[in-house]
Amino acid sequence: MSFSISLPDGSKKEFAESLTVGEVASKIATSLGKAAVAGKVNGVLKPLDFVLDADSELAIVTDKDEAALTVLRDTVAFVFEAVAKKKYPELKLGSHEADKEGFFVDTDKADQIKVSELPEFEKALQKVIKNGEKIEHVQIAKSELAEMFKDDPYKSALLEDEADMVDAYKLGDFVDFGFQALLPNTGKIKQFKLLSVAGAYWLGKSSNPMLQRIFGTAFFKATDLEADLKRRQEIKERDHRTLGRNLDLFFVDPKVGAGLPYWLPKGATIRRVVERYIIDREVADGYQHVYTPVLMNLDAYKTSGHWAHYRDDMFPPMDMGDGEMLELRPMNCPSHIQIYKHHIRSYRDLPFRVAELGMMHRYEKSGALSGLQRVREMTLNDGHTFVALDQVQSEFAKILKLIMDVYKDFDITDYYFRLSYRDPKNTDKYFANDEMWERSQKMLKGAMDDLGLDYVEAEGEAAFYGPKLDIQTKTALGNDETMSTIQLDFMLPERFGLTYVGQDGEEHRPVMIHRGIVGTMERFIAYLIEIYKGAFPTWLAPVQAEIIPVNLDVHGEYAEKVRMELAKRGFRVQVDSRNEKMGYKIRESQTQKVPYTLVLGDDEMNANCVNVRRYGTEEQKTMSLDEFINEITADVNEYSREN
Amino acid sequence: MSFSISLPDGSKKEFAESLTVGEVASKIATSLGKAAVAGKVNGVLKPLDFVLDADSELAIVTDKDEAALTVLRDTVAFVFEAVAKKKYPELKLGSHEADKEGFFVDTDKADQIKVSELPEFEKALQKVIKNGEKIEHVQIAKSELAEMFKDDPYKSALLEDEADMVDAYKLGDFVDFGFQALLPNTGKIKQFKLLSVAGAYWLGKSSNPMLQRIFGTAFFKATDLEADLKRRQEIKERDHRTLGRNLDLFFVDPKVGAGLPYWLPKGATIRRVVERYIIDREVADGYQHVYTPVLMNLDAYKTSGHWAHYRDDMFPPMDMGDGEMLELRPMNCPSHIQIYKHHIRSYRDLPFRVAELGMMHRYEKSGALSGLQRVREMTLNDGHTFVALDQVQSEFAKILKLIMDVYKDFDITDYYFRLSYRDPKNTDKYFANDEMWERSQKMLKGAMDDLGLDYVEAEGEAAFYGPKLDIQTKTALGNDETMSTIQLDFMLPERFGLTYVGQDGEEHRPVMIHRGIVGTMERFIAYLIEIYKGAFPTWLAPVQAEIIPVNLDVHGEYAEKVRMELAKRGFRVQVDSRNEKMGYKIRESQTQKVPYTLVLGDDEMNANCVNVRRYGTEEQKTMSLDEFINEITADVNEYSREN
Repeated sequence: MSFSISLPDGSKKEFAESLTVGEVASKIATSLGKAAVAGKVNGVLKPLDFVLDADSELAIVTDKDEAALTVLRDTVAFVFEAVAKKKYPELKLGSHEADKEGFFVDTDKADQIKVSELPEFEKALQKVIKNGEKIEHVQIAKSELAEMFKDDPYKSALLEDEADMVDAYKLGDFVDFGFQALLPNTGKIKQFKLLSVAGAYWLGKSSNPMLQRIFGTAFFKATDLEADLKRRQEIKERDHRTLGRNLDLFFVDPKVGAGLPYWLPKGATIRRVVERYIIDREVADGYQHVYTPVLMNLDAYKTSGHWAHYRDDMFPPMDMGDGEMLELRPMNCPSHIQIYKHHIRSYRDLPFRVAELGMMHRYEKSGALSGLQRVREMTLNDGHTFVALDQVQSEFAKILKLIMDVYKDFDITDYYFRLSYRDPKNTDKYFANDEMWERSQKMLKGAMDDLGLDYVEAEGEAAFYGPKLDIQTKTALGNDETMSTIQLDFMLPERFGLTYVGQDGEEHRPVMIHRGIVGTMERFIAYLIEIYKGAFPTWLAPVQAEIIPVNLDVHGEYAEKVRMELAKRGFRVQVDSRNEKMGYKIRESQTQKVPYTLVLGDDEMNANCVNVRRYGTEEQKTMSLDEFINEITADVNEYSREN
Repeated sequence: MSFSISLPDGSKKEFAESLTVGEVASKIATSLGKAAVAGKVNGVLKPLDFVLDADSELAIVTDKDEAALTVLRDTVAFVFEAVAKKKYPELKLGSHEADKEGFFVDTDKADQIKVSELPEFEKALQKVIKNGEKIEHVQIAKSELAEMFKDDPYKSALLEDEADMVDAYKLGDFVDFGFQALLPNTGKIKQFKLLSVAGAYWLGKSSNPMLQRIFGTAFFKATDLEADLKRRQEIKERDHRTLGRNLDLFFVDPKVGAGLPYWLPKGATIRRVVERYIIDREVADGYQHVYTPVLMNLDAYKTSGHWAHYRDDMFPPMDMGDGEMLELRPMNCPSHIQIYKHHIRSYRDLPFRVAELGMMHRYEKSGALSGLQRVREMTLNDGHTFVALDQVQSEFAKILKLIMDVYKDFDITDYYFRLSYRDPKNTDKYFANDEMWERSQKMLKGAMDDLGLDYVEAEGEAAFYGPKLDIQTKTALGNDETMSTIQLDFMLPERFGLTYVGQDGEEHRPVMIHRGIVGTMERFIAYLIEIYKGAFPTWLAPVQAEIIPVNLDVHGEYAEKVRMELAKRGFRVQVDSRNEKMGYKIRESQTQKVPYTLVLGDDEMNANCVNVRRYGTEEQKTMSLDEFINEITADVNEYSREN
């Protein structure tokens, strides 16, 4: 017997006898043997005691490698399970998982595990870690495990997906499976933290029992853990659901409708300002705004192809009698096509730009719903322009300019462009009109180059009906998100038989451009809440100035006068006339992230002044009411964002 | 044999032998005999040859009486039928009817009767009238008629409702039934007009065949006919469906969805201005505007009672799986109740005013749908205020003031108030809380009296859950319409368990007030189109100023400069740069009812002036651009309506 192990640096080592991953590491270098956490054998993560006895590729995983974190976190999850099971023998275990975000373990117990118990569990874990207990890797027959877990419905179900011989791990009496690789000893666990508890349906199905999911994370270095906890705190503070609750912006109540948000007065105010801004911007840019019905005859979605390809995302149709089937629209394109078709169009009418804040409904699984970010009812900042083929470039550039102008006003700066083309090697997968593809792709690229913009090109990423540009932003949590799209469509004009009369008097087929600037109101405002951390710039803030009289009896009247002066100029202002201490009111105005807090006492009243505290600063300025009006007016008009 | 006839003046005449209505008239006075058209015998309309042979009340109907018009119009309808049947022997006749609006006859023929044929039919009718042909009143056995009409499915069906002996009329060979009384001779027909042709389903059911309905009218005097035709022309000119088409405001296409209007750019602009106006007005008045979902769990409508009592008007529920049934909301009250319930409310929060432009869906039979007036999808200017019982009067007065202020801005002047109370003799039919009823009815009345308003009181007209005020306006066509309602509701707070914490620290039940100011956007704008006759006041007009350069090459640039000066101030302005004659463009601007037409030539360009023509006047004024900006600004700010 003789076999060779290929290492990542290209070298090969020959061995005459089988040996473990850990042994190979030690043979390469004693230090590597000590640092080794696991191995990647032919690309698959394996524990240190995995036996090599044939030609293989091997990469030793040390704490420098990302994969080591998964091993570490899986090990913490496993030890947590053992500790929990010891503490609560009646507890049933569900799924567990570890990845680059941390780990979780699902548990089921009549008296549920609470977040307040986590410190206690951490102590118990620390003890096991300190003891340096052995974690044994064993192969056990599936039938033997089935017998072992026969009273445990979740484990029994999970076991069904395993092979006849199952990789399992033992810590004392405790046994579990479903891990790729664990550390060989609890003493190797360094920094860990149990983070939170949340309900999670067994297998993610809402008809199944709700389990308690315990989240945690682990690192090799204390500084890494600290940085991660800080990042998590940041995420929590920016989470639009938390901020939405704290700032009283919206709520969702699954009992009255899953994924159907209620916009409370403050959230509704932000949305209204955004909606008016967008409409006015679009109208100034030549868009004709319309209102079209949220319901349409199902036949239109059969014509568009949505019913054939998109049915699972659509709501159930409603039978209205008389043979009429109505469908809540999943998109607005067919509605805007009705507007286009309502008159005979000529080349003089093009580009024909139609826009709408169009309400749509999409079916999402209840498990996927989240705050304003994933909903079932949404209002899209939608628009379609119908152009002649030779107008594609100029119209595309015009839309792009509008998008970037809007981004500027909302202070969206972190984004990049991605142009998607058809796959040149597979042109038969796409709408069949080579001229359209060739010319329009060239025009999109030409427009980007003319504007001097950098972009990523993605061959084969186009929809089958046309090329597109996506504008990718980063969310506050660092995720990539498509904020805007300019999507060419050669197909729908064909399917709905759209035409315009050209200069030659003949009928021609227009190109349709779907474009979104800020996407749905729901997702956009979720995004804004997170990037602004709830501190909306003055032009968007639901309350722009909070007026606090030092003494209600003495300064209440002056406060009301200031309020009226501001309100009649269209500012959103309120007087805090509650029976509370001034300090409390000022703090609350800060908590509510109100851009301006005006404190009014004797000095201010006698001089017709206001004492102004800008959100996020400690500084106070006293100025005349007129000066303040000038300042807040400029602030709103410039869409400025100081925070 | 002897019997007495009582006349309307109270006198009685004794007769020994039977005689006809006509004979009695002649016996009273020769002139009355000549003027008689029919008789009312015991309150029922009978022809002149109706035989009297027992004690009866009799009123002779002459051309002075309204009932005479029905006799005349029925006679014209009958003669039309005879003429049509003679011209087209294969034609089948359906229903016929005459009333104070005119008459109609339904016809069925493979090659349908067209409106262009009506003058020909009128000529044929004139001939029969000129001939003075006898119309014979006969009694025919039902069985004999059934045989006569055996090939005619409509008449056979209509015959089923008749008694064994049927009152029928003959003109030559032609026979028909279903008339109360006809004139005895075609020569007695004076002024008539065939008006129009429209499709009408047999018995009004859309699954039945579509017949051609011929409309007409008739009068005894030429001046009455003229006045009526003028009135009809007026109605036609004001009809919001016609104006909506001519001014390109909206359309409804039953093929994509019956009762689901598409708002074209110009109509959408009017709606948007109205919506922003209403929201700003309400926010200034203390309302908290929200957005709530159009879908809700069906259970909420079971709690509210709508599902039990209102189901026929609701859309079919949608089964979302996981046991969730979602329903398109037929009203917004349960949604606003969710907003109220979202926080614990205290007496300090009351009155709590929540408002929304809330989209709703109501099932209406397809036959009842009409333009924007009767639709299936609508957006209601809805609002609910939650008050303590002792706040009812002040809140009611506040709402009423808001409504009247809004009416003033829209120049709605023709309206009256109707207060609806519970029936004091049937208090057990109503929500059981005598104190609430007594006190709140007194408060509503008190508020009206304090404001010095006249009102009609309607006992027993209240809903079972609370008293209300309706504000009734007159539509342009003279119909009474409820524009606004302030409806008290004692029941929903009970059903949804709404409470507030009082000054005493105890939980109390609020009163809910449903209030609408202008109703749905759809019906309100249909109403505005009709009262304005499409000539919207400047603040609402979709295009506020049309700019017409005398010579596009020479004055086009100046026109664009003027447009930009106005557009940047937020006015809706366009330049007519088509290749058309100036006169044509000016006429078209008038046809489109644009408030200001600005004609720009050399004189205007050189002096930075505009030549202004106000819609509806012939007068032209030249003024500096600044002067014009001042004029149009004042016009918009004052919501003025000169037309």
